[in-house]
Amino acid sequence: METSGRMGARRIYETLKAQIIGRTYGTDGALPSSRSLAAELGVSRSTITVAYEQLAAEGFINVRHGARPRVVGAAVGAIEKREASRTSARNIHLSQLGARLLKDASRWTDPPRGLVANFRYGELSPSDFPVSAWKKAMVAAISRKPVHLAYDDPCGSLRLRRALQGYLWRSRSVRCHVDQIVVVNGSQQGLDICSRLLLDAGDRFVMEDPGYQIAKVVFAATGAIAVPVPVDADGLDTKRVAKIEARLAYVTPSHQYPLGGVLPVARRYELLAWARKHDAWLIEDDYDSEYRYDTKPVPPLQTLQDSGRVVYLGTVSKTLSPTLRVGYLVVPAGLQSAFAAAKQVMDRHTPLLEQEALAAMLESGTYEGHVRRARRRNAERRESLLQALHRRFGDRVRVEGAAAGLHLVAWFEGLPIAAEDDLVRTARSKGVGVYPISPLFDQRTAGRPDVVGLVMGYSALDAKQIEKGCKLLADAVEQIDRLANWTR
Amino acid sequence: METSGRMGARRIYETLKAQIIGRTYGTDGALPSSRSLAAELGVSRSTITVAYEQLAAEGFINVRHGARPRVVGAAVGAIEKREASRTSARNIHLSQLGARLLKDASRWTDPPRGLVANFRYGELSPSDFPVSAWKKAMVAAISRKPVHLAYDDPCGSLRLRRALQGYLWRSRSVRCHVDQIVVVNGSQQGLDICSRLLLDAGDRFVMEDPGYQIAKVVFAATGAIAVPVPVDADGLDTKRVAKIEARLAYVTPSHQYPLGGVLPVARRYELLAWARKHDAWLIEDDYDSEYRYDTKPVPPLQTLQDSGRVVYLGTVSKTLSPTLRVGYLVVPAGLQSAFAAAKQVMDRHTPLLEQEALAAMLESGTYEGHVRRARRRNAERRESLLQALHRRFGDRVRVEGAAAGLHLVAWFEGLPIAAEDDLVRTARSKGVGVYPISPLFDQRTAGRPDVVGLVMGYSALDAKQIEKGCKLLADAVEQIDRLANWTR
Repeated sequence: METSGRMGARRIYETLKAQIIGRTYGTDGALPSSRSLAAELGVSRSTITVAYEQLAAEGFINVRHGARPRVVGAAVGAIEKREASRTSARNIHLSQLGARLLKDASRWTDPPRGLVANFRYGELSPSDFPVSAWKKAMVAAISRKPVHLAYDDPCGSLRLRRALQGYLWRSRSVRCHVDQIVVVNGSQQGLDICSRLLLDAGDRFVMEDPGYQIAKVVFAATGAIAVPVPVDADGLDTKRVAKIEARLAYVTPSHQYPLGGVLPVARRYELLAWARKHDAWLIEDDYDSEYRYDTKPVPPLQTLQDSGRVVYLGTVSKTLSPTLRVGYLVVPAGLQSAFAAAKQVMDRHTPLLEQEALAAMLESGTYEGHVRRARRRNAERRESLLQALHRRFGDRVRVEGAAAGLHLVAWFEGLPIAAEDDLVRTARSKGVGVYPISPLFDQRTAGRPDVVGLVMGYSALDAKQIEKGCKLLADAVEQIDRLANWTR
Repeated sequence: METSGRMGARRIYETLKAQIIGRTYGTDGALPSSRSLAAELGVSRSTITVAYEQLAAEGFINVRHGARPRVVGAAVGAIEKREASRTSARNIHLSQLGARLLKDASRWTDPPRGLVANFRYGELSPSDFPVSAWKKAMVAAISRKPVHLAYDDPCGSLRLRRALQGYLWRSRSVRCHVDQIVVVNGSQQGLDICSRLLLDAGDRFVMEDPGYQIAKVVFAATGAIAVPVPVDADGLDTKRVAKIEARLAYVTPSHQYPLGGVLPVARRYELLAWARKHDAWLIEDDYDSEYRYDTKPVPPLQTLQDSGRVVYLGTVSKTLSPTLRVGYLVVPAGLQSAFAAAKQVMDRHTPLLEQEALAAMLESGTYEGHVRRARRRNAERRESLLQALHRRFGDRVRVEGAAAGLHLVAWFEGLPIAAEDDLVRTARSKGVGVYPISPLFDQRTAGRPDVVGLVMGYSALDAKQIEKGCKLLADAVEQIDRLANWTR
């Protein structure tokens, strides 16, 4: 009977029970009505009733006439939750790319809960999200009945690309044709498209050191080889790039990640000259350029003459939310067809309703108003953090890269790198999430720091959390100092 | 002055003019206020005023005190719209994958407008979209203030995966652990992840012939080689697969695309045995299994014993909308880590609000209610199309694959394949969009049809459009018949 898809009451009962225990319906959640489940499974309603009666008899569900059966929360709670088993993929034949990814990619983990303050970079405060504006824009997008429900342009909706064209010019002096814009699912997908279109196995690519690790992982997944180049207070050391033969360089000129330098114009021209000489591509990741405090804007590489080798990358992950997954590329004219073809086979196009909603916010000026407000709030947060660090640590902490963006680097003088793990653990035990900079350095080069440095993101925190977090961090440092004196 | 990012009034004027002509603001659209533009560009407000005054003097914009300047539509209309130039990428150094994509991928084109009926497969009727349910679910998702705005699980929100786990079991008898589910941006991304994790350059993969071309393009982009295997009325000819050495087979067992056969259980077991013998993967694309009319459900490969080599692929593109870009994979336990790593570097995760909205619709039963309604409507459309074809063409048209899905194949006996282009053009000139099946056949094999066959999608059309479309199609066929008699 298996083959016709019809199931007996016993198998239905067993599967439902497994699902209830696996919390498919949540605790106290409702199961489907017997009528609708019978229709879906193609069995008689009485078959479902038998299964439901058995589950009710065993205390898994409550059945009331005329209502959908509900899970009995207590019954579920009593059964230990089976732990998710993400089986290892050893002995499984993966592609070379798959094997590389499995080796290099760091595994995503649930954000820690219940911390007093989590200085994790990349998170935003839910209170900054423009809930009513986004709701309004989204409702309008859903209500607008389109002529077709059909796949849209792989490069993104024309309406959004027009709106972005104007925005990019106003906010970043970027002048481009609408057809050079490719809407992507966040900058991560932008990096991925670049890796696939521009790198082959064995190619070399320049990475800032320290730098953005997930970019390195996605480029290296192609089989290409990272060439780390040191970063100083002004960003990438372009003199050192000059001698390197490579296909591509990944750069963050507006606000180097993580050290925060702003690449001077002279270095920008050096980079462009290098790219021209080597027939190489520059990936300009302008990930947080909306946030600029006491520094003048420097125009992106994309706006400088001879920018036909620059792929410019922007995102709303730092202005609206990283969970929306919307970003955009400005690609050289000669690459338009390749990017369109790649985006189409990768996922057809970015979800259309989000694109419409963002376009509406850009057109009405709501987006730029929101960005101005977010900029003010983050300027306040930054000020709070600078003051708290100064108050708690005085000269012991040297701050780097605070002129722009949503994070800074705090170097703890006299706290040797060997104490890093201890500091992270001790701080966590006191309720503070801190993230060392050392994993962002290339592990093969000599340039790694010898004192503890933390990448401190502040955009998800309020002033009180920042103040409290710094106090607890100071406690943690003090505790580690004491331990160091003990063991000496 | 360029280097500080400050611009003079002339450059601002020139750029605005180019944008107005390029319709960045639409015709009659509003430009930013001088205050906000000045703030964005970091120049004085009077600089913007000078630029705006020049544009007004030239008739490009209307300036009124206290309001944002507006584009003068007539001025824009008078200037010929510069055609989008998607420059060719010749002489540009792309990766091997990039070069293959550029060669193989068909370019997306705007859907034709103003047709009486467009029988294009894959489009849905906007009147079927559950506007108010989606709006409600989306508003709830936006309003629910999360603890963090942070990257979520690359495999998808736990809430949605739990809801899908129950749905997949109820609707498709698929039993799986929540961790086997990976939420993707439509089935296209599911195919892309599979191509990257499971295929290397030089590997061979089995494709149904005729088959789904964009799957072939994405698999072949890795450098792997397609091995076409013929399809008959029962789907893939698995006897022929048995002798083939390959890493992967892409199959559509529920409703073969495009011919519509339902793969019998015996063939399913043959496929599974083949995969086991060759250590190969089966990609089971269950793209339209929600639509089943006069055929019994056959359980997916995924549900049959020994399914540790099956990657199951589903989508809401055929039930809600192709523009939402939500799909899901059920992967074998051993592949979970690799899929999680790949999804993370590809785009972090699928947009979260959509996932929450879909989860809410699944939990409340709204989704399944919607699917039942859509099924009824599409059953009516299918009936209309079958009747209209019979009435207009009688025995001349042989229908294939109408038992399930959202399309059928209409074979026109006595209309030689050489007349195919003529028929498409003639039908289009009469206001009907029709799409021949021949491009879905492997171009290297002998199995191509010798009479015209059309893949007729009906899910975007109402009964009147179907009736009118078939009448006009009959006119077109008659016209071609007459021409054929003439030239004989």
